Amino acid sequence: MSANTPAPAPGPLAPDELARMDAYWRAANYLSVGQIYLLDNPLLREPLRAGHVKPRLLGHWGTTPGLNFLYLHLNRIIRARDLDLIFIAGPGHGGPALTANTWLEGSYSELYPDVSADAEGMRRLFKQFSFPGGVGSHATPETPGSIHEGGELGYALSHAFGAVFDNPGLVACCVVGDGEAETGPLATAWHSNKFLNPATDGAVLPILHLNGYKIANPTLLARIPEAELESLLRGYGYAPRFVSGDDPALMHQAMAATLDAVFDEIAAIQAAARGGGAGARPPWPMIVLRSPKGWTGPKVVDGLPAEGTWRSHQVPLSGIHTNPEHLAQLEQWLAGYRPGELFDAEGRLRPELAALAPAGARRMGANPQANGGLLLRKLRLPDFRDHAVEVTVPGAAEAESTRVLGGWLREVMRRNLESRNFRVMGPDETASNRLGALFEVTGRSWMAERLPGDDHLAADGRVMEILSEHTCQGWLEGYLLTGRHGFFSCYEAFIHIVDSMFNQHAKWLKVSKEVPWRRPIASLTYLLTSHVWRQDHNGFSHQDPGFIDLVVNKKADTIRVYLPPDANCLLYVADRCLRSRDFINVIVAGKQPEPQWLSMEAAINHCSAGIGIWEWASSDRGGEPDVVLAAAGDVPTLEVLAAAQLLREHLPELRVRVVNVVDLMTLQPREEHPSGLTDRDFDSLFTTDRPILFAYHGYPWLIHRLTYRRTNHRNLHVRGYKEEGTTTTPFDMVVRNDLDRFHLVGDVIDRVPGLGVRAAYVKQLMRDKRTGHREYIARHGEDLPEVRNWRWGETP
Amino acid sequence: MSANTPAPAPGPLAPDELARMDAYWRAANYLSVGQIYLLDNPLLREPLRAGHVKPRLLGHWGTTPGLNFLYLHLNRIIRARDLDLIFIAGPGHGGPALTANTWLEGSYSELYPDVSADAEGMRRLFKQFSFPGGVGSHATPETPGSIHEGGELGYALSHAFGAVFDNPGLVACCVVGDGEAETGPLATAWHSNKFLNPATDGAVLPILHLNGYKIANPTLLARIPEAELESLLRGYGYAPRFVSGDDPALMHQAMAATLDAVFDEIAAIQAAARGGGAGARPPWPMIVLRSPKGWTGPKVVDGLPAEGTWRSHQVPLSGIHTNPEHLAQLEQWLAGYRPGELFDAEGRLRPELAALAPAGARRMGANPQANGGLLLRKLRLPDFRDHAVEVTVPGAAEAESTRVLGGWLREVMRRNLESRNFRVMGPDETASNRLGALFEVTGRSWMAERLPGDDHLAADGRVMEILSEHTCQGWLEGYLLTGRHGFFSCYEAFIHIVDSMFNQHAKWLKVSKEVPWRRPIASLTYLLTSHVWRQDHNGFSHQDPGFIDLVVNKKADTIRVYLPPDANCLLYVADRCLRSRDFINVIVAGKQPEPQWLSMEAAINHCSAGIGIWEWASSDRGGEPDVVLAAAGDVPTLEVLAAAQLLREHLPELRVRVVNVVDLMTLQPREEHPSGLTDRDFDSLFTTDRPILFAYHGYPWLIHRLTYRRTNHRNLHVRGYKEEGTTTTPFDMVVRNDLDRFHLVGDVIDRVPGLGVRAAYVKQLMRDKRTGHREYIARHGEDLPEVRNWRWGETP
Repeated sequence: MSANTPAPAPGPLAPDELARMDAYWRAANYLSVGQIYLLDNPLLREPLRAGHVKPRLLGHWGTTPGLNFLYLHLNRIIRARDLDLIFIAGPGHGGPALTANTWLEGSYSELYPDVSADAEGMRRLFKQFSFPGGVGSHATPETPGSIHEGGELGYALSHAFGAVFDNPGLVACCVVGDGEAETGPLATAWHSNKFLNPATDGAVLPILHLNGYKIANPTLLARIPEAELESLLRGYGYAPRFVSGDDPALMHQAMAATLDAVFDEIAAIQAAARGGGAGARPPWPMIVLRSPKGWTGPKVVDGLPAEGTWRSHQVPLSGIHTNPEHLAQLEQWLAGYRPGELFDAEGRLRPELAALAPAGARRMGANPQANGGLLLRKLRLPDFRDHAVEVTVPGAAEAESTRVLGGWLREVMRRNLESRNFRVMGPDETASNRLGALFEVTGRSWMAERLPGDDHLAADGRVMEILSEHTCQGWLEGYLLTGRHGFFSCYEAFIHIVDSMFNQHAKWLKVSKEVPWRRPIASLTYLLTSHVWRQDHNGFSHQDPGFIDLVVNKKADTIRVYLPPDANCLLYVADRCLRSRDFINVIVAGKQPEPQWLSMEAAINHCSAGIGIWEWASSDRGGEPDVVLAAAGDVPTLEVLAAAQLLREHLPELRVRVVNVVDLMTLQPREEHPSGLTDRDFDSLFTTDRPILFAYHGYPWLIHRLTYRRTNHRNLHVRGYKEEGTTTTPFDMVVRNDLDRFHLVGDVIDRVPGLGVRAAYVKQLMRDKRTGHREYIARHGEDLPEVRNWRWGETP
Repeated sequence: MSANTPAPAPGPLAPDELARMDAYWRAANYLSVGQIYLLDNPLLREPLRAGHVKPRLLGHWGTTPGLNFLYLHLNRIIRARDLDLIFIAGPGHGGPALTANTWLEGSYSELYPDVSADAEGMRRLFKQFSFPGGVGSHATPETPGSIHEGGELGYALSHAFGAVFDNPGLVACCVVGDGEAETGPLATAWHSNKFLNPATDGAVLPILHLNGYKIANPTLLARIPEAELESLLRGYGYAPRFVSGDDPALMHQAMAATLDAVFDEIAAIQAAARGGGAGARPPWPMIVLRSPKGWTGPKVVDGLPAEGTWRSHQVPLSGIHTNPEHLAQLEQWLAGYRPGELFDAEGRLRPELAALAPAGARRMGANPQANGGLLLRKLRLPDFRDHAVEVTVPGAAEAESTRVLGGWLREVMRRNLESRNFRVMGPDETASNRLGALFEVTGRSWMAERLPGDDHLAADGRVMEILSEHTCQGWLEGYLLTGRHGFFSCYEAFIHIVDSMFNQHAKWLKVSKEVPWRRPIASLTYLLTSHVWRQDHNGFSHQDPGFIDLVVNKKADTIRVYLPPDANCLLYVADRCLRSRDFINVIVAGKQPEPQWLSMEAAINHCSAGIGIWEWASSDRGGEPDVVLAAAGDVPTLEVLAAAQLLREHLPELRVRVVNVVDLMTLQPREEHPSGLTDRDFDSLFTTDRPILFAYHGYPWLIHRLTYRRTNHRNLHVRGYKEEGTTTTPFDMVVRNDLDRFHLVGDVIDRVPGLGVRAAYVKQLMRDKRTGHREYIARHGEDLPEVRNWRWGETP
């Protein structure tokens, strides 16, 4: 059985070290199997009975021994070279490996004293795994040393790269499972090496772990010729070394020798780059580990091969409670690791084995990088007021909101250049999204070839652009989780590409907050721009405001959504987001020239409340209105104001209240979201009985979903994007979705009772204007100047 | 200027053919520039004035001349070899290239007679592009020959492979832009060649088009050494040929020679495989085309290089209306193509050029494969009643719903094996999702290496598994769009990975329905299983029922959502989905053993209505109830029935109505969705004034969003998944989210007025039971047998 003490084999490990290392590996494997199976009898001191075994057998054995093998060998190299190294387990469902190893190295019991480093602690360690009230089966936030849960596959490598950017002393060792390697996000994340600067960033050591099988299938990369695989990895820009086999002794020697060589290479690359060398992109070393799935597990179960096949993926012996043979096999399996040689009488790891783990913060389970909040330094934020657009009269000034923001972001970048803890991500859209001012102080990160005429490419650039939203998101998550700050700007429609990554990060944050030793990290802030209403170049495929709908499904204490109506509001909101911790912030703001409504002072007042009445646009003079016109979003705000102007002119007796919403979560009841208004405040803004016309940036029903419990919900009528669009003019877009000023006026007239004959005439007038505008657009291909140039106070 | 007639160059093209081909290319480029710029003066017969130019200049020139170049050369090879070939433009925002070429070949004017093949048609062709009321800027459904819009990047290759599966005579030529090549989905889609059987499938010819730049950045693959790129592509399993340069004559000869060689190779591979050869996976040929971005466009604009740089990405000359120099440059640019030599007096393409295009259905714009509904053959569907679970008394039988479905799917597969038009996709989860019966009649598609012990791998397998939801989705879309049928099973949480692909396909279907010549295609049907409530092995990261929320944002006539409560209902629903056209169907159903409620007859009645009262579970005896208990989803149905049973026992005087929802869209108003109930029917089910307790599978607020306009919405109270979960027992999961039977009974008691003291006692009893269950779970790690084994009619 492969769990026997290995025969000596040639290699860098002396026989004694080899024996101890193999024993340590057996200990980790023993603890892993124990977690999957045992409720009691942790040290196997009495014959194993079914009663010692959990009633429900859950977990993933298949990948676990390989993770244990790697963790062990990384321990050795950390000690040998005093490395600052974190471990990213792509196959995070090998969770037992990480809890086993952190328990062995002591970091687990430090954080969870009740799971002590003795027999009783071992019993608890076993019981809690995948047990109600216990710990999950993946490398969840509860897992010491983890920044990567590995539940949903695809993001291990981008997380690893994110962690080492601006962390020149750090190595992220990233195990990529051959299942995960088939995913798209992982397949492109290999190219992250074109963005890694060996002079100022740390190193990622990818270990592609070919154990050959997924749940039921072989893996692609294990079933192409090795030469083809090597070609692929060289094409990705790596110099792979292969460690293949199943004989533990040979494998220990091979892995030790390979790691020695690999870290020599990394050291040489870094020394060359840091000695002021050329700065060419080196072929980075990596390892391909080919080992059996379920290594050291049962070779045959029920007459079918188990070790080395997909049948080892989850729980190889699943019939413990009904099949005595399985029980016997389990006992034999556990006993094969010879726990008596590994743990002393109290159940503690024997000292000669414990000595194999690094000490203190060098232990991978205690590395502060993996609890980034510990290292977090506040950003030095410039005063956003200095970037204010001067707005003396509402609507008099015009600005591109994101361009104004870009000026402030440039200053954020400048002030934190020295501390190297702020990066901006965007899939090739930073300039397109009008944040180009950033390039006055930094460049675009780029380690691939450069040509004359390239625009702001730089090896030490702090703006990161790759045409992969997945990679941008993964980098940013890795960067934030290791205690830094960032900002992600994206076309609104295509942020859906990372929906599932958002979900996973939101889940990570939710659980992290429940883990007492996890310190808060900087929030993940999205700027969604080039939004649904202004896809002039691209049309329907680029129109989707539904990311917000996804976001609000997650826990209220984790998510924030802002729709600043102008540049000054955007500045305030962005500043708030960069100061916040443990949130996911979503900001939606346009990049096109638009009228500016609020002075900086007014913007601060408005945004700090998150919602409010715009008195200057209202005609209810502080009294009860006949109708409430509300808006959330820059384009809806424009249309609502134009509608208010039209009503003022055509129905001057109508008392109109204009409400603007910046913080979308104010609409939710206070009990549902901390930003939520009390019912009393909501009622005083929206009245309890007057019609409300709400113009919303996104899908209209979201507003209903947020407000259905409010008193006046029955009178709420929402206009928004109803999935009508194409390549057309900005005004035609709002017309197609009934969000335009003329339609809004008609909506008001339909809903306010007793307006009489004149109102019917006004409604017809609005219809005519609408038709006239559409005809003009169809003929001329652009909006009427009176729409394009409309200013508050003029007739729209 | 590069638009000059090329000097003769060595190669397969005779001088005359070369000259004509170059002229054809100039014609396509001329038409492309015309679409971006011209409102009038299409043949440049008078001096160009600003008034001839569109007021808003939109579109993407950069990629367009390269697409024109390729289309031209594919025309040649189609004619030379009578190929059945479709064109997939990964950079679909080069839309003008496709409209230009289909207009030149005549297919455009056949479908759009008003855009005739003459000067007036040319004027309309120009005007309509990116013009209000006109056509979009991408290869949208309006574009003849397109099955791939190319708005959101990443899916060109998986679409191409999907199109050629089971299409042995077809070649899909797929242009992959070097921007798109950076995305994750594209990066992994290269591996699709491990699933392509040269004997029974067609061929994909990938052309990686390196024009070097994205919006503002160089592209990665253009900035790695060519040897590294070649290594990458060989690692992906291709044999690349490079065509690089900017001299048209040399490039024409090089591309013609390369295509000759490539199609020889494809023919040889297919001949070998179809002659009963070995069946080893060949290295498939592919082409890397390296040509300047904005090739033949202005070389310098405003003193800065344009051709060959990112500045050619959209509209290189953007100041036409304000800058006379730009206007002059535009005229010079257009005139450089010498339209007088290309078009006759009526504006028709000269006959010697027109002869270069293939004829009839061989034209890429007229290939019926790209209008798959034309080729669609109905599936032969076995009677689902033959697979019914016998249910004599509600709840007496137990079954795994998806396993029952698997038996029916096996028969669907069997009956259509011969017509080879049905495939099942799943990211390595077909067996896990208990559809394994399929493997009794077919295998898993697999052209990579095989080993003894592999499970049902087969070169001609019709179940397609790769650990990439993106690839599964892309394959299936390509397969459906070319007139075939399919089924996609996926873990519920991870379907979010393809959120954005769903969005794009829904948009494609919405627009397709508005295009008169597009024939309906088979619906895309998802089975979401391994759902939120039963992630026993995986916990929180695998729990997300929010895909439905995304789906219902799309057009009502495109989407359907079903939550069958048991196996017989699932059978009915699946049959309906496979018969439907032009929808996206979402079915959510569990795979775990669960009680079965309805006989087949009852299931048919229930599901054909989509919603209904379960009389046998109700105690209102057809009269007015005191409370309505509603459920949507299998787990909620179980809890609601258990709650109804508890109420029957503990509060026998209470009249309870039990409503079950299968078709979620019945909840929406009829005006919003064709499945929606009328208000009258809704009121008669849910009453107008009694409390409703609704137990829902997903996020509870979705039910509010669907029903907020209903009369009795104010009395609606929804329980569902509120983002609480971990690795725990099934019953603990419902308890954590307040969806459990005991909590539901408490909810009823809280909401039905006048129940008196006994009810308060019952509520306390429920609380105690709940606490007792949780304590049991925490102690024993499993649910109480009385919960696990509860049957309708017994005390829960």
